[in-house]
This record gives sequence, C-alpha cells and structure tokens, in this order.
Amino acid sequence: HLGHRPQYLPLEHGFDEWFGSPNCHFGPYNGSVQPNIPVYNNTEMIGRYFEDFKIDLRTGESNLTQMYLMEGIDFIRRQTDAKQPFFLYWAADATHAPVYASKSFLGKSQRGRYGDAVMELDYSVGQILSLLQGLGIEKNTFVFFTSDNGAALISSPHEGGSNGPFLCGKQTTFEGGMREPAIAWWPGHIKDGTVSLQPANVMDLFTTSLALAGISPPDDRTLDGMDLTAVLLNGSHKLHNRPIFFYRGNEMMAVRLGQYKAHYWTWSNSWEEFQHGVNFCPGQEVPGVTTHDQKEHTLQPLIFHLGQDPGEKYPLSVLTKEYQEVLRNISAVVQQHQKTLVPGMPQLNMCDLAVMNWAPPGCEKLGKCLKPPKSAPWKCLWPH
Amino acid sequence: HLGHRPQYLPLEHGFDEWFGSPNCHFGPYNGSVQPNIPVYNNTEMIGRYFEDFKIDLRTGESNLTQMYLMEGIDFIRRQTDAKQPFFLYWAADATHAPVYASKSFLGKSQRGRYGDAVMELDYSVGQILSLLQGLGIEKNTFVFFTSDNGAALISSPHEGGSNGPFLCGKQTTFEGGMREPAIAWWPGHIKDGTVSLQPANVMDLFTTSLALAGISPPDDRTLDGMDLTAVLLNGSHKLHNRPIFFYRGNEMMAVRLGQYKAHYWTWSNSWEEFQHGVNFCPGQEVPGVTTHDQKEHTLQPLIFHLGQDPGEKYPLSVLTKEYQEVLRNISAVVQQHQKTLVPGMPQLNMCDLAVMNWAPPGCEKLGKCLKPPKSAPWKCLWPH
Repeated sequence: HLGHRPQYLPLEHGFDEWFGSPNCHFGPYNGSVQPNIPVYNNTEMIGRYFEDFKIDLRTGESNLTQMYLMEGIDFIRRQTDAKQPFFLYWAADATHAPVYASKSFLGKSQRGRYGDAVMELDYSVGQILSLLQGLGIEKNTFVFFTSDNGAALISSPHEGGSNGPFLCGKQTTFEGGMREPAIAWWPGHIKDGTVSLQPANVMDLFTTSLALAGISPPDDRTLDGMDLTAVLLNGSHKLHNRPIFFYRGNEMMAVRLGQYKAHYWTWSNSWEEFQHGVNFCPGQEVPGVTTHDQKEHTLQPLIFHLGQDPGEKYPLSVLTKEYQEVLRNISAVVQQHQKTLVPGMPQLNMCDLAVMNWAPPGCEKLGKCLKPPKSAPWKCLWPH
Repeated sequence: HLGHRPQYLPLEHGFDEWFGSPNCHFGPYNGSVQPNIPVYNNTEMIGRYFEDFKIDLRTGESNLTQMYLMEGIDFIRRQTDAKQPFFLYWAADATHAPVYASKSFLGKSQRGRYGDAVMELDYSVGQILSLLQGLGIEKNTFVFFTSDNGAALISSPHEGGSNGPFLCGKQTTFEGGMREPAIAWWPGHIKDGTVSLQPANVMDLFTTSLALAGISPPDDRTLDGMDLTAVLLNGSHKLHNRPIFFYRGNEMMAVRLGQYKAHYWTWSNSWEEFQHGVNFCPGQEVPGVTTHDQKEHTLQPLIFHLGQDPGEKYPLSVLTKEYQEVLRNISAVVQQHQKTLVPGMPQLNMCDLAVMNWAPPGCEKLGKCLKPPKSAPWKCLWPH
C-alpha cells in the first residue's frame, strides 16, 4: 500500500530484489471495471491474484504463504552462500481478509480460518528462524516480528483477530487499532524472555536497522524513528520518555506520553457507515469516546492512564491535579511537534481509473495486458 | 458470604479453626442502623472492622492481608510441627472494594491502589509457597489459587480489576463475571507450565480435595463437583466434556458445553440501576446480549463459540448447521439437568435487621455488644 505505480515500487526505494505485490489480495475482479492485482518478481509482473496465484474464497485455500516462505528461504540461502549481509522484509498477508491458508493448515486450528492462517504464519516464522540456526548465522541476524495495525474487527471473528482488552480496531487511533505485539530475536545479544515497556513504533525500525548495520542516518531530514538498540540489546530498563503521535490522515488524533494518552479528536467511523453495518468497535461503546462524529477535544483532550486503563474506558476527570499535570506535559510536547512538523506532500490522494494495474511491466510477455480506460483523475481524499 | 449467623459459620461446617470474618469488609457503620462486621477467632468475635481492625478509606491503608498471612503461616507451622495433614482455605479480600494494602505496598504498583493490593496478595502467596518449601513439605502439599468471580467492573478502574477480553464483570453470567484464572501447584506432581483447557469450577475443589485426601465422597447426595486429579496430575489432554451451568439465583441463565456457551436468559442489570450509573459492562454493549431487561431466549438461546469469540460479541446465526447441531447437544444436557435437579432450600432470602451482627458470640468479653432492634423479618429476594 505504498503505491502501485512504478516509481513507488520497492526496487525504486532501496531494495535489490522483490517478490510480492504492491497491494493486498483483494478481488477477484473480472478485468473490465477493475484489473486483478499483479504479483511481481523484481521489475516485472509474473501473474495476477486469483488468475495465476489462486485463492479459493469458498474454501480459503491458497499456497501464497508457502510461496513467500520459499522465496524468503531462497534469499537467505543465496545471501549466506555468497557471504553477503542482508535485509529481508518478509510481509505475509494471509491474515488480511479474505483470509487464506494452505491445505495442510486449513481446519487445523480451533479458531477457524483465521486461526489456520495464524498457524501457518507461525510455522513459517519458525521455518525462517530454524534456517538461520541451521546456517549458523543466528548470532549474526537480528529478527523483528510485528504487525502494521491492530486486528481488523470489521472482518471478525471469521476473518479477523481480536484486540483483547483494547478499544476498537484497525482504522481507529484507539489502542485496538494501534498497539501491536512485537518480538525481537537475536540469540546471544537479546536475552530470552525479557520484556521492555519502551513505547516504540515501526518507524523506529528504519533508524534501528541503520544503527545495527553501522550506517549513519542521513542528516538532511528529520527522522521520526528512534534507534532502539539500547533498549533491545542492553536490556536497558530506563525508558526513553518519547511521545508517540497517532495520526489519521493529516489530523493528529492523539498523543501518548509515558503511561498517558491524550485524544485531541475522537472518531470511530461515520454514522453513515455505522448505519450500514460497518463497525470498527463491535460490542464496545464508550460514551464520548467511540464517537461517530469527528469530535474535537483540542481545547480539553480526553486523557487516559493506559497503565491503569489500557481499554480507554475511564477518561481522567479534568478536575484532578493528575489531569492538569499530564495536560501541561503533553501540551508542551504537542506544541513543539506542531511547530517543527513539515507536512509531507500527499502521494496518494488523487484517483484515476487509468492508473490501476491494467498493464504492469512484464504484462506483454505473459499476454496479460489490459486496456486502461481514458485518464480522468479526481481528488479522492479518504475521509478522515 | 455463606451466612453470618452461628449455624453458618465455618466451625459448623467441618473446619477445626477459623480466623476471619463472615462478610466482606464493608463499612464503616456507626452502629445505630447497622453494626460493623465482626472478625472472629474460632467461635468468638475478637473485634470489628474499622473499629478494631483498621481500614483507612482515605489512604487505603490496612494491615489485614498481613494479619491473614501471619495466621496462615502460623497454622501451617503448627500442623507441620505436629506432623498433621491440613486443609487451609486462605481467603484474602484486599482486592474487594474498599481496596486496601499495607503501608509497604501502598503506592508501589503502576496500577494504583488496586495494583498495590494485588502486589501484596502476590507477595503473600509467595510467602506461603516459600514456607512450604522451607518446611520441606512442598512435595506433599497441593496448592490451588483462584477467584470466586470476575473483576467487579462497578468498582473499576480504581478499586476493581479488568476482565481483559471478556464481556462484562462480576454479578453477570457473561464470561467477565464467571471465567477465572486458576493455578494449581504441587512440585513433583504437577509439571511446571502445563496448561489445561478442561472447563472446571470451584465446586470441583471439594471433590478433588476428597480424592487427594483418599476419602470417598458421600453417596447420599448428588455432587456437582468433578474430581480434577486426572486432569491436574496426569496432565491428561483428553478433556472431559462436562457442562458448566451458569445460575443467577434460581434461574439457569447459560450453559457451557465444550467450546460453546448457550444463553437462555440475558441480563446485565436493570434499567433503573443502569440509569443511576451502576454498570456491570462499562464501555461494552453487545446488542441483544448485554440487555437491561431480563430477556428470555429459552426457545432459541444465543450461542457463542468461546474458542473463536471469547468476548461473546458474535452470536452464531440460528440458520447455520453449526447452531442447530450445538443446540441439539446442549438441549439434551439441559433437559437431563433440569429433570434431575433437586432445588436447594434458599437460606438467605429472608431479611431481618435483628439478625445482623449486633451481638456476635464473644462480644460481652470485649464490651462490644450492641442492642438489636425488634425482629421484623421480611422476604428480600435479590432481584435476579
């Protein structure tokens, strides 16, 4: 989802090899109004989802995770044979609706199709770790496992996970949408079973990867990520009191600082969507918090103590000393953030049916080029 | 809460010694409309909560957990010295509102006063286990840790816990009110870290204790509890497919069988209570499930697959084959249950101000007898 046009693809952004797709496995489409999404091997497409890379929506069967696993394993083997260091970004998407698993995992879990997909993901990560150990490079390989968002409750329970005690799910800035489990693995460098309470985010992985590779980050820009090596490797228990900003589009919805989280805007989804049965917070309703209006609290944010109330159910009373103190600290951080923030140029807010995946590079060889409609771009802001 | 009148006290029901109270530490009362609740040592009261056994409602300080700990430790030591087997029921109540902790734990947790109380409970259990090891009797002592109900969300977050992903809390028959963590400990007999998925309930502890003590259960009555020794000691992975019945008063609200739970009645609490701010499901609302009316579903129960939906948010569609099959199995079990059930005589549905703890045995010696009002019993059913 970082863009499907050639200039956005991984090989244009520092990767040497790429196997995969620029989008999720949505579909199937019949190729008239919308083309099926292509799968690439490096610079050229090698087929399309549903046509060449099968996903059976009825049974949930697909071999895609196994294919991604084989590609990952092959890459690690080749790099190791060549005595080359490597960075592998292994992004499986079997747990995204429509959820799939391969035949040997289907029906195996007690958690339905979603559980089957998780089992296969778990198996695959295990295969990768075993390979690193088998090749004897595990003490020289840093592995980080996480997710890009909380469970998509709109797909639950059959094709989505659960966010346990957290509020709402993917698409929101509540904890259920934003807080992720993460596991770092590096035998001999990270002690088994240690737990860190340091708030971190996926942007930190860029800065951390540079540090691990011994590369200085570029100094011509502000980096949002923090180098986590001190936290991960030295088991440092001193927490870095850094803020985490929760955005929805261009709007700063919330800020976390230490144990506290302040919501400057609340919104689950629109009344319109909600009345059509789309619900990002099924079974949950916190008055004044899971609002279906885009509710502004910028003058008096809702503040939660996440240590005492991870489910964001009990806003602190604005009359307490605690609230006033926390607000003072968070306000200073927000002011600094907003003063220094240089907004990026939106790359994905124009739509044009003509730029969909009609004729990706490589389509000619396969005879899979489709004729795009006439270009007619329109501004298509996602409603934040 | 098994009755505070002499005939209900522990020494009348098989215990040889007792230190504690027949009620929770509610209060303080001024002794005119309601007496403070007594603390007993065996057959006689030795004081009253708030008067002699201090609980500071403002700071949350009380030494009660330490006192219970000392009594428990003393009992274990005495029995061990006398080479006598023993059964200790150690029922701390610090996490029940008004929540308390002793000075050395107050302010120590990140979870406020409730967390402080949990820390002291954890410390105390640790002291008991260490003592068993110190005395060298740990391989001959079975320890079971659990709670009598889910977190009381009406007291949360400051004086109550969290039920994580489960629906609602104490006082309801949803999972948040009924499902408990439990830990069994017996070095050399129970393997560290094993997890059993066997549904069980506290009534099983009676039957299990008899089995461990090598005593045959009485055969003149039906026992609701099941002997858990096979599950606990042999690490048997074969689950016993026994039903669990969820009652509220005399009404069978729900039944669990295997992974499924069928609700025959749903009710959180009344509209009247709810409108006065009493909420057993704060932040949660599942349409048709967390009802404020006593809603009957006996002809077509709401069925959840707890393995896939532990939060009871997605009832199975009645149109599915799965629903029909599960209903058939559960109906047979319910019919059998209702056919063979002999309802007990209610012991606690009459109220009388005269029978409150005005003058418990032992009060004369202490000069703590209060004059009871004239007896005027009335029927006081708790509204189920």
